[in-house]
Amino acid sequence: MNHILSNASDLIGRIRESKPLVHHITNYVTVNDCANITLAVGASPIMADAVEEVREIAAISGSLVLNIGTLNERTINAMLAAGKKANERHVPVVLDPVGAGASVFRNQTVGKLIEQVHFNIIRGNLSEIRYIAGLGGTTKGVDASETDLCGDTQSGIDIAKALADKLRCVIAITGATDIISDGKKTVLIENGHKMLGAVTGTGCMCSSLVGSACAATSDYFLAAVSGILYMGIAGEIAFENAGQNGTGSFRVSAIDEISKLDADTVRRRAKLYEA
Amino acid sequence: MNHILSNASDLIGRIRESKPLVHHITNYVTVNDCANITLAVGASPIMADAVEEVREIAAISGSLVLNIGTLNERTINAMLAAGKKANERHVPVVLDPVGAGASVFRNQTVGKLIEQVHFNIIRGNLSEIRYIAGLGGTTKGVDASETDLCGDTQSGIDIAKALADKLRCVIAITGATDIISDGKKTVLIENGHKMLGAVTGTGCMCSSLVGSACAATSDYFLAAVSGILYMGIAGEIAFENAGQNGTGSFRVSAIDEISKLDADTVRRRAKLYEA
Amino acid sequence: MNHILSNASDLIGRIRESKPLVHHITNYVTVNDCANITLAVGASPIMADAVEEVREIAAISGSLVLNIGTLNERTINAMLAAGKKANERHVPVVLDPVGAGASVFRNQTVGKLIEQVHFNIIRGNLSEIRYIAGLGGTTKGVDASETDLCGDTQSGIDIAKALADKLRCVIAITGATDIISDGKKTVLIENGHKMLGAVTGTGCMCSSLVGSACAATSDYFLAAVSGILYMGIAGEIAFENAGQNGTGSFRVSAIDEISKLDADTVRRRAKLYEA
Repeated sequence: MNHILSNASDLIGRIRESKPLVHHITNYVTVNDCANITLAVGASPIMADAVEEVREIAAISGSLVLNIGTLNERTINAMLAAGKKANERHVPVVLDPVGAGASVFRNQTVGKLIEQVHFNIIRGNLSEIRYIAGLGGTTKGVDASETDLCGDTQSGIDIAKALADKLRCVIAITGATDIISDGKKTVLIENGHKMLGAVTGTGCMCSSLVGSACAATSDYFLAAVSGILYMGIAGEIAFENAGQNGTGSFRVSAIDEISKLDADTVRRRAKLYEA
Repeated sequence: MNHILSNASDLIGRIRESKPLVHHITNYVTVNDCANITLAVGASPIMADAVEEVREIAAISGSLVLNIGTLNERTINAMLAAGKKANERHVPVVLDPVGAGASVFRNQTVGKLIEQVHFNIIRGNLSEIRYIAGLGGTTKGVDASETDLCGDTQSGIDIAKALADKLRCVIAITGATDIISDGKKTVLIENGHKMLGAVTGTGCMCSSLVGSACAATSDYFLAAVSGILYMGIAGEIAFENAGQNGTGSFRVSAIDEISKLDADTVRRRAKLYEA
Repeated sequence: MNHILSNASDLIGRIRESKPLVHHITNYVTVNDCANITLAVGASPIMADAVEEVREIAAISGSLVLNIGTLNERTINAMLAAGKKANERHVPVVLDPVGAGASVFRNQTVGKLIEQVHFNIIRGNLSEIRYIAGLGGTTKGVDASETDLCGDTQSGIDIAKALADKLRCVIAITGATDIISDGKKTVLIENGHKMLGAVTGTGCMCSSLVGSACAATSDYFLAAVSGILYMGIAGEIAFENAGQNGTGSFRVSAIDEISKLDADTVRRRAKLYEA
């Protein structure tokens, strides 16, 4: 664990130095937060979703983040086009399957995406990942359900491992305890604060951090661990600084803390465990 | 009045306990604020506007909020589909007719929506409600006009009452004095602060609070009064805390105050009068 | 220079008094910030992009801002329709060519816009303006490249002048040193702070301020200088107040400072030079 912690701590410096372009095709609810957190961690966001340009943008980007928060026919086509081009060019692709399990349309879209695009990392809450794993689910809307937040960690680990194996990718389940697995290695993260669930887009922002991280290393397991760790630590510090003011201030502070985060803070704060 | 004040104060606890899903089909300008204020009051927002999924999402939601801030052909169809399904399932529907009166396209859309969907609550500024009432209007863009802000309260009361009667729904006109009527009962609220007009989306956020409230009670008049009261009180406290810093801080603080609002504060601060 | 400084200082009062309607057809990433900064400077934003209504809205507006941050076929048609109507009615039009040079689709769109619509002001970073000037470019995504930030000012001046002449409009290149030229007069601004580059939408917000300004004067050179000056000064003060907290707080503070900006502060802070 010391090895991965040390690498996760150092990665933030590598993001800030390389300023990778992170192409997002994402929802219109949290897109501004995703752009700002990407800038805050030192990468450069580009939110382009016209099918006419997504191949070109994906091809010059360091990574691609697909987020299905607000889907429509037009953006689904853009996601498929961008995802295939990214695969072709070995640009890593992250999927945030927002609300998978909540509607037939989302389910079909997730199915189509996973069939046609190889994802290097999939990050969701337990309901969403359970749905993708074919285990049905308790998805109610786009927020984590009670089960997600208080679920049994061992069952989450089993699901993450099996799905990572099946899809040959890194699976990250975020919740009270975050679970990241590539099928062989599995890591748990105990950072974060429950107020993150009271602000829209903290999951999406986490995926943007993961996307930023995987544009700065070819170790996608490390990238997933790092992005999730950064978000958790920023959330903790934000709660200490601004939690008592309310959720509006907490959100601003979480972005602040990502913009100031350094290797030392990550090393000192990380609660990282082998599963 | 003591009765409704007491119920409006208690309702916030019921929202926080029941965490209802509030389906929004709304504009892309203020959608993030609407999601955050919905979370701040204790409900769970879902912003889904694809015609392929809106019926399914509306059917599982506690309420539906339709906001025409940035219309287009695609989202109009989604609004109609979601609204009809909500009516069928007795899911309460709130309309925020942003900019009604400002363009033929908005006017036609509002006409179509009101013809095909039964709204339980319509919340707008005086210009917008005047337009819907067939009284022409002074709508200039999407912000309240001078007339809206300094209009004669008695004429607003008459309009609200008559329109509530005609459409068999609750009509809420927000402004310096808020007017809420179901045709029989009419209540005035004197909370709020004029700086709310200097931040985009405070009207939309108010509609989201009304939507959250009507997912936690079947008394839609109470829901409208409560949502508007919460926004006004939060705006007042936000101005006291952050108004001198400027409109950016004021906006953050308004969301903070909704996230911390409790029955006691509502009871203590409310300026609620019978018309 | 004293003359233009005095006029730029006074213009903010004229915006606040006249509260002009500023029609935006813009991207969904930063649209909320654009609306809030427009309100903060005293104007009234309307974000309408349905082709069915943009002509009508443009015709009643004080100015029109077209921003190509997130293009698609639907909004391009709306931009062309609105732009032509604005030209017909002598409503000033501002172009923010976000990411020009970064994809064929953006390049073609910019070409089409400039061919079919007369722009009174074009504001972009050096890469974007270089592309429009037919000088190729180093556009990488939508953020300013290193070259933009550390480019040679004299070459920027030459480009701005020549392009202003060619397109008969005001060209504004924003960066470490801002360059504004109408072909005859050229002004440099040394205000601002590099943290503005770490927040998404500060360029877009700058264009919104320019749009607000040109709805309050028929001197579009003055409008461009004023909007850019306001943004730079607000950024400087925001950094002094909140920079050490991080980029989230800095962004809130920048909007705060625009909402409080007055003629005196502009006069005292401005670093305006003749080129």
